Amino acid sequence: MSKVPYAFLKRLKLKNQTAREFLGEFLGTMILILFGGAAFAQTVLEKRGVGDVFAVVFAWGVGVMMGLATAMGVSGGHINPAVTVAFASLGKFPWKKVPVYLVAQHLGAFVASAIIYFNYIDALNWYDGGNRTVLGETGSAYIWATYPKEYVSTANCLLDQVVGTGILMFTVLAVIDERNVKFPLWGAAIALGFMICALAMCYGANCMAALNPARDFATRAFTAIAGWGAEPFSHRNYNYFWVGIIGPHLGAIIGGWMYYLGVELHWPDEEDEEPAQKEMKELIDHSDHLNNKTERTAV
Amino acid sequence: MSKVPYAFLKRLKLKNQTAREFLGEFLGTMILILFGGAAFAQTVLEKRGVGDVFAVVFAWGVGVMMGLATAMGVSGGHINPAVTVAFASLGKFPWKKVPVYLVAQHLGAFVASAIIYFNYIDALNWYDGGNRTVLGETGSAYIWATYPKEYVSTANCLLDQVVGTGILMFTVLAVIDERNVKFPLWGAAIALGFMICALAMCYGANCMAALNPARDFATRAFTAIAGWGAEPFSHRNYNYFWVGIIGPHLGAIIGGWMYYLGVELHWPDEEDEEPAQKEMKELIDHSDHLNNKTERTAV
Amino acid sequence: MSKVPYAFLKRLKLKNQTAREFLGEFLGTMILILFGGAAFAQTVLEKRGVGDVFAVVFAWGVGVMMGLATAMGVSGGHINPAVTVAFASLGKFPWKKVPVYLVAQHLGAFVASAIIYFNYIDALNWYDGGNRTVLGETGSAYIWATYPKEYVSTANCLLDQVVGTGILMFTVLAVIDERNVKFPLWGAAIALGFMICALAMCYGANCMAALNPARDFATRAFTAIAGWGAEPFSHRNYNYFWVGIIGPHLGAIIGGWMYYLGVELHWPDEEDEEPAQKEMKELIDHSDHLNNKTERTAV
Amino acid sequence: MSKVPYAFLKRLKLKNQTAREFLGEFLGTMILILFGGAAFAQTVLEKRGVGDVFAVVFAWGVGVMMGLATAMGVSGGHINPAVTVAFASLGKFPWKKVPVYLVAQHLGAFVASAIIYFNYIDALNWYDGGNRTVLGETGSAYIWATYPKEYVSTANCLLDQVVGTGILMFTVLAVIDERNVKFPLWGAAIALGFMICALAMCYGANCMAALNPARDFATRAFTAIAGWGAEPFSHRNYNYFWVGIIGPHLGAIIGGWMYYLGVELHWPDEEDEEPAQKEMKELIDHSDHLNNKTERTAV
Repeated sequence: MSKVPYAFLKRLKLKNQTAREFLGEFLGTMILILFGGAAFAQTVLEKRGVGDVFAVVFAWGVGVMMGLATAMGVSGGHINPAVTVAFASLGKFPWKKVPVYLVAQHLGAFVASAIIYFNYIDALNWYDGGNRTVLGETGSAYIWATYPKEYVSTANCLLDQVVGTGILMFTVLAVIDERNVKFPLWGAAIALGFMICALAMCYGANCMAALNPARDFATRAFTAIAGWGAEPFSHRNYNYFWVGIIGPHLGAIIGGWMYYLGVELHWPDEEDEEPAQKEMKELIDHSDHLNNKTERTAV
Repeated sequence: MSKVPYAFLKRLKLKNQTAREFLGEFLGTMILILFGGAAFAQTVLEKRGVGDVFAVVFAWGVGVMMGLATAMGVSGGHINPAVTVAFASLGKFPWKKVPVYLVAQHLGAFVASAIIYFNYIDALNWYDGGNRTVLGETGSAYIWATYPKEYVSTANCLLDQVVGTGILMFTVLAVIDERNVKFPLWGAAIALGFMICALAMCYGANCMAALNPARDFATRAFTAIAGWGAEPFSHRNYNYFWVGIIGPHLGAIIGGWMYYLGVELHWPDEEDEEPAQKEMKELIDHSDHLNNKTERTAV
Repeated sequence: MSKVPYAFLKRLKLKNQTAREFLGEFLGTMILILFGGAAFAQTVLEKRGVGDVFAVVFAWGVGVMMGLATAMGVSGGHINPAVTVAFASLGKFPWKKVPVYLVAQHLGAFVASAIIYFNYIDALNWYDGGNRTVLGETGSAYIWATYPKEYVSTANCLLDQVVGTGILMFTVLAVIDERNVKFPLWGAAIALGFMICALAMCYGANCMAALNPARDFATRAFTAIAGWGAEPFSHRNYNYFWVGIIGPHLGAIIGGWMYYLGVELHWPDEEDEEPAQKEMKELIDHSDHLNNKTERTAV
Repeated sequence: MSKVPYAFLKRLKLKNQTAREFLGEFLGTMILILFGGAAFAQTVLEKRGVGDVFAVVFAWGVGVMMGLATAMGVSGGHINPAVTVAFASLGKFPWKKVPVYLVAQHLGAFVASAIIYFNYIDALNWYDGGNRTVLGETGSAYIWATYPKEYVSTANCLLDQVVGTGILMFTVLAVIDERNVKFPLWGAAIALGFMICALAMCYGANCMAALNPARDFATRAFTAIAGWGAEPFSHRNYNYFWVGIIGPHLGAIIGGWMYYLGVELHWPDEEDEEPAQKEMKELIDHSDHLNNKTERTAV
């Protein structure tokens, strides 16, 4: 496939499957945030607040489409720590790879945060006169990370993230289920993009729809480092920032198991179905279910 | 397919096809409302009224896409009592299964209503100070169920629901017709999502486009129970709530038969076509046309 | 395919291919207007003027998607007189069938206009107090037919419709060209829906983007009959209404020939290509290139 | 395929592959601008400024979809000089063809600019009273070419275009990569349309998201000739107009190489893979990798 005319580049080729998967998740999550985060930056810095709701959420949807187009064939295209952990809890992904994926995803989101920052540095300085604040009239930290509505309790925010990410993981499993409606990988990328787009306008009113720990924690960490001080974490006396981490992780596990127990478990047996025992063995021994062939377990 | 590492879960596997179909319709309809209803909740509780029209209707469209992605392979993906009854009237679905499907659909919509309520409980209390009212400045019942514009008569609302759901059922049959444009199941899910999205902004001005008895009755029943009192049903002296039930059922039957009489009946015979008599026998004897293979009769 | 349990219905089955095509174009065009026209009705009668631009144009796009889903397999899915005539001018459609298609399309648009009128009759009477006017504060005729901006000359409107419909026909031919990007029929229906949606927000500022004589003339005739008087036709001293007929017809022919001369003519020969002479003969003798198999010449 | 009934037209058929490719890029880029540019014209000339953001960016997205539907099968569908040069830098496109493609693309954008101008000539004269200005209350040159926000430095604009077009080229390569998610050509056209749509609302706040030298330079040249004077080029003392040329070219090369080095290089070898040496030879000798079969290297 490669037609690059420099033979020496071949030496850079990664032989290590885990390294490739790391790159896939890193780049896929970076692309996701480069769309979604920049759409927030555009609307906030043009002083339109969250602005044209649909325009912003559609950008998040396309971020998912293009993140999946980047990573699905390489690493399965989780691009969300909550999805990775939920897959692992369902036995669809090896636990030992989870840390690799999570680091890659958070790193991708962090790098994308920095790119957006530098891309909009002049606009940012014009917007707040160089005085970075989290919220308020010229607050801008919510370009990167989520913050709750004042009147919504932290407990309610947690529930909100559990429900939202539960729906996310439930529908991810529906779309990629080989025995349900049979989306091709590319069709799954488009449909899941629409799904995220809608989710952000259905579950964004309480606390801005993190739905993805990398999208909320790594980007929040970036603002804490880049000039917004401790507030991104100390908001509500350090009693909010964890919601965008714990909520999605919890929700994805619950949503994933609901799909498994509600639909997947009940598909009729096929004659040629391998015994579950054997499948598990293969999974753990070879960890190759996410190999280079773009398989249906991806997302 | 299942790689869940807990062998005992296999014991939970449903052998009963009807139970599986019940679950499919329950979960599919729940997903539909978890998108559409929550989009209304978000826009109303952020005090933007019906707000950004397109954002809200797109959420309904994605609710259909994801509801179909959940249920099409399991139960055919009706996720709408009006569709189920219309299929039955056309001989495409066994009458004896109709009650099972309808209960599942209404129950799914009811559970989704409750989830949305608890998810937005803090916002709701902030919005109306705990004083639940149906309409008016801080009215919120229209998050869940439809209410007519004051100047539109009940008779006109009924016509509106007949027309809207007629178009819905007509286009459903067009999209899933194996001899017309041949959408694959997943493409049908996307196209029918777009269809619902558009329908909601074409036939929403009179009485908010119920188009689905489960989406209007079960959600209305939830509000009556959850604190809005009798008004959801007593509105217009009990002379409106039935419109969202009767109108869609009537419309879907009319629209379905229009497609049948206008298009489907006239496809040229194929040499290998089974005699109608034999087809009917198979249908009634085995009731298996909605089995686990994701067939084209689905939607 | 048909599972309708009433054997006597088989007697209603049309044997005549032309009758089936008539029905296909009639129903397809009706569906198109039932979406697009109703979206205008909704936004105008809710006193939002042309309102949320994207919501309205998306409804037109979905109208095309669903109109094509209805008619592509039956009649090729022209649902636009300008497309039919342009196909004929290119030798892709028999001239003798043109009148049949045009009557069906205009009739479909007329019936849809009436349905929209009755569906929104109460809202209409509330909106204008029963005093139907074409333009002005409570004017409503532009729900059905197009009217030009005051400052745009009729000549400029004509150019506008030629350009807009030229792009329409050019891209229709690109999308259905079997030797270009190879959209499947259902993918073509979706893509052409998006195309119309965009066209309406690119070429709507001068005179509201008729782009289809049935969508402008038959709907205009409806208003003239239904209570808006002579104004729909006498507007600008009878010097505008013809623009939405002549402009699209002219534009589609020009756009169609531009695609033919710019792209289609130059596809390299294939060994098995039939001589043009023979093709023409077949075309004229049998007129069967739009038969029941959903062929790629459709749209 | 062609059924045009005039045999003499066959004589116009181009035998020259380069001439066909020129036509493909010319028409594809023309279609792109005929959508996107006209959407700007509509919203600006209706005095809605950049107006409904999503409506305008969706038109750019559909412009890409339809431009690709026109040109992908003929010339690979670059319709963007930055994409052509980046492909060449990656060895995926012969350098000797680059000038042909670039001229065709700029010419297509120029002709489309003129068509939009004449299409909206009455509206334009009404809007500015015939007094063409670039910016300001009745400025209109930004219908055709991009201009920066006052508070964004030229250096920041350059970075912005590098980042934006970098993402564009990265995702183009992801979508067309035969070993990643395997979009069919027509699915790629739709997905890349969505991508451009989102990019325009993520990276439009600084300097209006040129992302394509033909879309910015040729259209700017048109305004300079058509009555807006020197200002389109002399803006910021001739220190801005080059950003929309250099930025995208630079960004596409960087983004393309990032995808190559991050993903494409690392696909595992296949047994039947041809040696890179041999591939290169074929590429240079025959230059036929963009021939009439709609290959996957297209975009």
